[in-house]
This record gives sequence, C-alpha cells and structure tokens, in this order.
Amino acid sequence: MNEFASVLDDEAVAVARVLANDHVADVVEALNREPRETAIELLCAVPFERLVEIFDQPELESAPELAAALPRAKAGKLLTAMSVDRAADILRELDEPARSELLGALAPPLRATLLSILGYPEGSAASIMTTEFVSVPSDWTVGRTLDYIRKVERTRETVYAIYITDKDTQLLLRATGLRRLITGEPQDSILSVADRMPVTVTPLTDRETLAQTISKYDLLALPVVDHGKILGIVTIDDIIDTMVEETTEDVHRFGGMEALDEPYMKMGFLAMIQKRAGWLCALFLSEMLTANAMQSYEGELEKAIVLTLFIPLIMSSGGNSGSQATSLVIRALALREIGLRDWWRVALRELPTGLVLGSILGIVGICRIALWQYFGFYDYGSHWMLIAATVGAALVGIVTFGSLSGSMLPFALKRIGFDPASASAPFVATLVDVTGLVIYFSVALVILRGTLL
Amino acid sequence: MNEFASVLDDEAVAVARVLANDHVADVVEALNREPRETAIELLCAVPFERLVEIFDQPELESAPELAAALPRAKAGKLLTAMSVDRAADILRELDEPARSELLGALAPPLRATLLSILGYPEGSAASIMTTEFVSVPSDWTVGRTLDYIRKVERTRETVYAIYITDKDTQLLLRATGLRRLITGEPQDSILSVADRMPVTVTPLTDRETLAQTISKYDLLALPVVDHGKILGIVTIDDIIDTMVEETTEDVHRFGGMEALDEPYMKMGFLAMIQKRAGWLCALFLSEMLTANAMQSYEGELEKAIVLTLFIPLIMSSGGNSGSQATSLVIRALALREIGLRDWWRVALRELPTGLVLGSILGIVGICRIALWQYFGFYDYGSHWMLIAATVGAALVGIVTFGSLSGSMLPFALKRIGFDPASASAPFVATLVDVTGLVIYFSVALVILRGTLL
Repeated sequence: MNEFASVLDDEAVAVARVLANDHVADVVEALNREPRETAIELLCAVPFERLVEIFDQPELESAPELAAALPRAKAGKLLTAMSVDRAADILRELDEPARSELLGALAPPLRATLLSILGYPEGSAASIMTTEFVSVPSDWTVGRTLDYIRKVERTRETVYAIYITDKDTQLLLRATGLRRLITGEPQDSILSVADRMPVTVTPLTDRETLAQTISKYDLLALPVVDHGKILGIVTIDDIIDTMVEETTEDVHRFGGMEALDEPYMKMGFLAMIQKRAGWLCALFLSEMLTANAMQSYEGELEKAIVLTLFIPLIMSSGGNSGSQATSLVIRALALREIGLRDWWRVALRELPTGLVLGSILGIVGICRIALWQYFGFYDYGSHWMLIAATVGAALVGIVTFGSLSGSMLPFALKRIGFDPASASAPFVATLVDVTGLVIYFSVALVILRGTLL
Repeated sequence: MNEFASVLDDEAVAVARVLANDHVADVVEALNREPRETAIELLCAVPFERLVEIFDQPELESAPELAAALPRAKAGKLLTAMSVDRAADILRELDEPARSELLGALAPPLRATLLSILGYPEGSAASIMTTEFVSVPSDWTVGRTLDYIRKVERTRETVYAIYITDKDTQLLLRATGLRRLITGEPQDSILSVADRMPVTVTPLTDRETLAQTISKYDLLALPVVDHGKILGIVTIDDIIDTMVEETTEDVHRFGGMEALDEPYMKMGFLAMIQKRAGWLCALFLSEMLTANAMQSYEGELEKAIVLTLFIPLIMSSGGNSGSQATSLVIRALALREIGLRDWWRVALRELPTGLVLGSILGIVGICRIALWQYFGFYDYGSHWMLIAATVGAALVGIVTFGSLSGSMLPFALKRIGFDPASASAPFVATLVDVTGLVIYFSVALVILRGTLL
C-alpha cells in the first residue's frame, strides 16, 4: 500500500479515501475526474464488492476501457458479479479482441445470456434490459413468493415488480408489486394479489417508446416479452439515464451536428471535428445556392445597392421564425401530441401565425427605415417609402415561408424515415435563406419597377 | 343514463366504454382528445373511485378547469381523496375565486397542508412533493413497521422508501427500502435493516437538481427536508414527468422562443403569437445592426459589388458553427460535466476547433470560386483569386469567432443569473452576424486594397 500511495499525488490519495467511504455515486464522480491511468490504479486497490458497485453505475465513464485494463481473471469475476444489463453495456462498447477474450472468461450460461442481449440492436428494449428479475409460477402462494424474494433479493435489480408465469406454459400471465404482495395472506395463491396482465414491450421496442410507456403508466419496470415469454425487464433508472442521453442527442442535433457520444471535455479533438465538420460542410454547400441566387439578381443589385443593406436582416428573420416552428413541431411529434397525418393541421396553424409574425416584423422594419430617414441617420434616397414597403412586404412573405417550411421539415424527415429531430435550426435557416433571397428580390422587382429597378 | 347517452355522439359512447374498462392512462388519453364540455359530462358519469384515479394522472390536460366544473361538493371530495401533490398542482393552476372556493370545501388540516405546499415557488422540490409517505419512529420493530405499511399502503404514493425519524426529536435519521425490510426478522429493531442517512434535498431545490440527484443515486424517492424534519417526498414518476417538460422547454428555448406550457395544438392563437413574437422582435432589433454595419461599408460595396454575393454564405457559416458550440456547452453545463469556472478550458478547445472547421470551409469556398471561374459559370473579374482569398480568410475568422462566442454565450448567461439554455441558435446567429460582417469587410479591405477597393 505504501508503494502504491507513493506513485499517486495528493489528489489521488484524497480520491482513495472517497473510494472507501463515500456513496458509490460520488466515488464514480471522483473517478471520472481522474486520468485513466490513475483510475485504473485506484480500481485495482479497491475491495472486490466495491468494485462491482462502481461498475454497476452507468455514470462511470470509459467503463469498457477500465474493465479491459483489469487483470483478465478479475475482469471475468467482475462481469459475472455485476448486473447483466451493465455487463452487456460494457461488452457492447468494447473492441475486439478484448471483447471475445472477456466473454471467454465467463461461465457458459452467462456468456449465452450476454451474447443474446448483444445480438439485439443498440437502443432496443432487449439491449438495455436486465435478465435479473423476479418471476414465479402461478401455483405459488404469497408466503412462498415472499420467502423466495427474501432469498434472491440481493441478486435482483428490482424486487418491486413481480411477474407471474403460467406454471405449465411459462407464458407471462400477470404482474404484481411487492407492496401488494405484503398485504396478502401467506397461504393465499399469488394470483389473489395479482393485477391484470401488465403492459409489455417487445425486444425491439425503441428507447423513446420505452420512456413514454413507463412514464404514461407510472411503472417501475417494464417486461420485455417475446411470443408470450418474458425475456427480461427494463427498469425505471435505466429509462432515466436513457432520457438524459436522448435529450443530449436531441440538443446536439438541433444545434446542427452529429450527437456526441462522450462528454464534451473528454472527446478527442479529431473526433470532435468529425462530428461537426460533416453537417457544417453540408450546410455550407447548400448555402452556396445563395451565391447563385445573388448572381442572378446582380443587375438589380447594381442599380439599387441600397437593397443589399437589408439582406442579412431579412434572411435571418426567416431563419429565426423557421427555427421556432421546427422546435415546436419536433417536440410535439416526440411527445406524440401530433402524428404524421396531422401535417395539414399544423400547416393551417403556421400559415396565419407566420402572417401575423411577419406583419409585426414588417411594421417594425418600416418604422426603422422611416425613423432613420426622418432623423437623417441615413439617406435612402427619394424612393425611401418604396424601399420601406419592399422590406415590409418581403418580411411578411419570408417569415410566413419560414414558419411554414420550418414546421413541415420535421414531418418531411419523418416521412422519409429519418428522425424528425435531425431538423436542426441551421438546417431550417439554410432551407429558408435561398428562398428568402428570391422572395426579397421578387418583391423588390414588383414594387420598385419603374423607379429604382 | 339514457338521457345522458342521447346528448353524446357515437365517439363519446366509445369513450364512455373506455372510461369504465381501460387502464387509467388510456382513459386519460381518450379524455384529452375530447372537447372540454364532453369531457366534463363523461367525468360526471364516472364512479368516484375511478374519478380519483383519473385526476391522479398528471397527463390529464386542463385538470384544473375540469375540477372546477364539477359540483363543488364532489370537487372537494375529489381533492381530499386524490394524492396531495396532484391536488396542489390543480389548485396552483386554478384562478380565483375558484381556487379559494375549492380550498374552502376541504377539511382544515388538508387545507393547511395544501396552502403550505402552494406557498413554495413553482418547480421547487416542495411544490411537487407529496406529503403521503411512510415514516416510522426509530424505536419500532421490523414487524410493527410491516404491519403499519400493510394498513396504510393504499393511501401512500410509495411504500418502497421508508423513512425513520428519531423517536424524540422527530428529525430524519435513516432510510430503508421495503426490499430490505422484508429480509429482516420481525422482532428486530427497524434500525437493523436501515441504510445510512439518505440523500436529501431542501424545499427550494430546483427540479433540474432533483432529476440529477435522483438519477445519480438511483433512488425511487427523494426526501424533502427542512431543518432536519422531513416535509414530504418527491417520487421518481414525478421526476420523469418533470424531465419531459424540461426537455420540451429546452428545445423550445433553443429554437428561439418562450417555452410553451400547453400542447402545441391546444395553445390559443394569440398566446402562441405572444410566445414567439417577443424573441423574434428582440432578435430582429439586434439584427438591425447588420444594416448599420452594411451602411458603413457602402463605399466598398459600390466599388466591389461582387463582395455582396458571398454575404449570406459567410454569415450563415458563422451562425451554424456558433449554434453547434452553443448546443454542446448548454448540454455539458446541464449535465454538470463542466462548471462556470471551466470557461477558459472550453475556450481553449473551441479556438483550435473553430480554426480547423473554418479552414475546411475556407478551402471548400475557395474551390467553389475557382471552379466557377474556371468553367465559366460566372466571371469574378481579373482579381478572382484575391476575391477567393478574401472569402477563404473571412471564413476562417468568422467560423472561429462563431465557435468561440457560441461556446461562451451560455457561460455569460449563467454568470449573470440567466438559464444558460436561453442561449438559442437564433440568438447566437444574431450575435455572430454583425461581427461576421465586420470581419468580412475588414479582411476584404486588407486583401483587396489597391486592386478592387
């Protein structure tokens, strides 16, 4: 221990103290702050039971790398002792050959269970479920079930949800809760305290639906059922972790980039560039169409250079109103307040909304030009009223177009099979920019023909 | 019942069937789809116990209005029978005089409890807690506690978390879970199956911290403690509802508007305009600075109209990179991966990231101009190489500035006491636009001096 302490700095010694005494969630937080080498050294010095607790926390960063760095035998014991769903998470993120080596160190039944969980696509119910749940045959009594739960309590992720299977077919029949169980008489059948058939999900149910189902029915666990047989359960704490991850992904994507799968400060520099450059280039290439649009109006630009002054102002208003509409529709779709077939209802709402918002901005814009002209801050020339009218009318058109297309984009993406949350604010802005320019110059051609143009 | 059925259409009859038989969560969903008048008629016909179940669902829309529309005596009985936290929610959203009238119909002790909950600010732990939890004095045995739980089970929101208070001072001492309790011997002291002092929150803890605490420590309930006394508990299902709401608010705000507090399709038209027009006007007014910036470069614009062609392209790139950086920092702050004092670390990351991303876009931009010139799509004049260099260099500067200011904006907002999530994509874009123009024209002045300018 002396030798061990000597290689660590003061901070690490403090961490070692935390490791031994604090709540495991705080231990994990402390470990996450350490460089990986120090974390591994610390973990090697921790008692085995504590090690299991630490690795059972999904908040532990780089858990796969840490597990792989442990001596092989210890890592095998660790995977066996920890909860099955976390063990599967760790193996899923591990590269070969470390993954196969670790799997080889496990007992065949556990290996088979883990391999079957790993076979399901990431994010599906089966991929995050645990197989450590309580299920009892339908001919047991309340007393026998309670005795059984007392015995297995330590090895089950939750004992609050109890599943009752048919004693012959082993198909899932009913569910009950520990709170109902303790109110029953010991000699009564377990079915006497059971609720109706529980709400279930299939192995391929996606995590968004899982979160919605568990929150809608106020459940602590959700059984994953295939052909009537219960394969495992997804517990509410996994759902919460999932929801936090999902929110992060949504915000990143709405910001116009690929979602990061690691914490911001731990992400490698090149990986970060990769996640951001793709969308940035795609948006840049699309936005190049604005240069083409401007080129085709070059004649007008030369005649009325005053028009260029308002280009950024007008284009950004279209993007802003579009971004508002998109964020509204993304959330309404995610919360299932609206479905794909409601697109026309949304369009009918956004059309008048856009017209009113555009009119408000248009009036503000006209006032701005009139004020500057009146107080002599800037001279827009003798046709300043026509220019103000052009700006005002263009704003009505562009904000309406922005609201409409911003609200329709998530529908369009969903329709062609993409996640509607990929409709980012920059995406909408880019979509609106080119059309915005065309609207602006078309309005200018109509209003200013014969005077400036 | 005949008379009642005659005023309802076929769909409502189907709903009435659902009301009687389906899972309460599905009943609520069906009711939410009905117009308010129909919903009230249906609720009047429902057995009282079912009515309580329905109103206990936070998913029931317009619950306060529905409760106020019930006969006063029935509404009073309803509020008494339902869970205290939901009753407080309903009263909080009710306007006067309906609120005082309903409170008047309640028994004095319940009224006092509700008034004390209502006295706490919205969103605080005390405002969403329930006072229906299980707590027992420290001198009880395991058996006595179990008997007590069996008796009160039906009136408690959760019995899975059990709080042990000092038998004399009534201060919170320890916590345990029902799963530990059933493993104990009936004659043993309750303290023999208790864990250490539980993680607690104060009455004023905000809901974001609640969600983080409950998810970090994997709890089913979190006790709200004031001066050592336990006032109530916040349960995990309330937290999930809170998290969903919070995500919606974050997405709305990131889209550049005030968060909606009602579903998109149910929001009144004027209320919707209000929520959107404020930010839209604020952004519009700020963006007007671009017109001022353009005015001050009017001389350059007239000499080199070709420069205007790239204004939308260059400005949008700054906004896009800023939006990416903002979304990253907002989430990292929300997840506590970084704190306020880490701003310089983030700046040190965003500076090289912005330089690299800007260089990538700059090279793409230069290639675009060279290709168009080479293939004769457009003639940028004899100085096209200088123009390409201007665009390229401006992109490096603007994307770097965008990444930097986008990442610093959430810190700045947090520093002055605002929610960092108010840093919306349109906000960042507007911030970057004015500076972007200045950067572009400054670069142009340096590179093109003596040739075009």
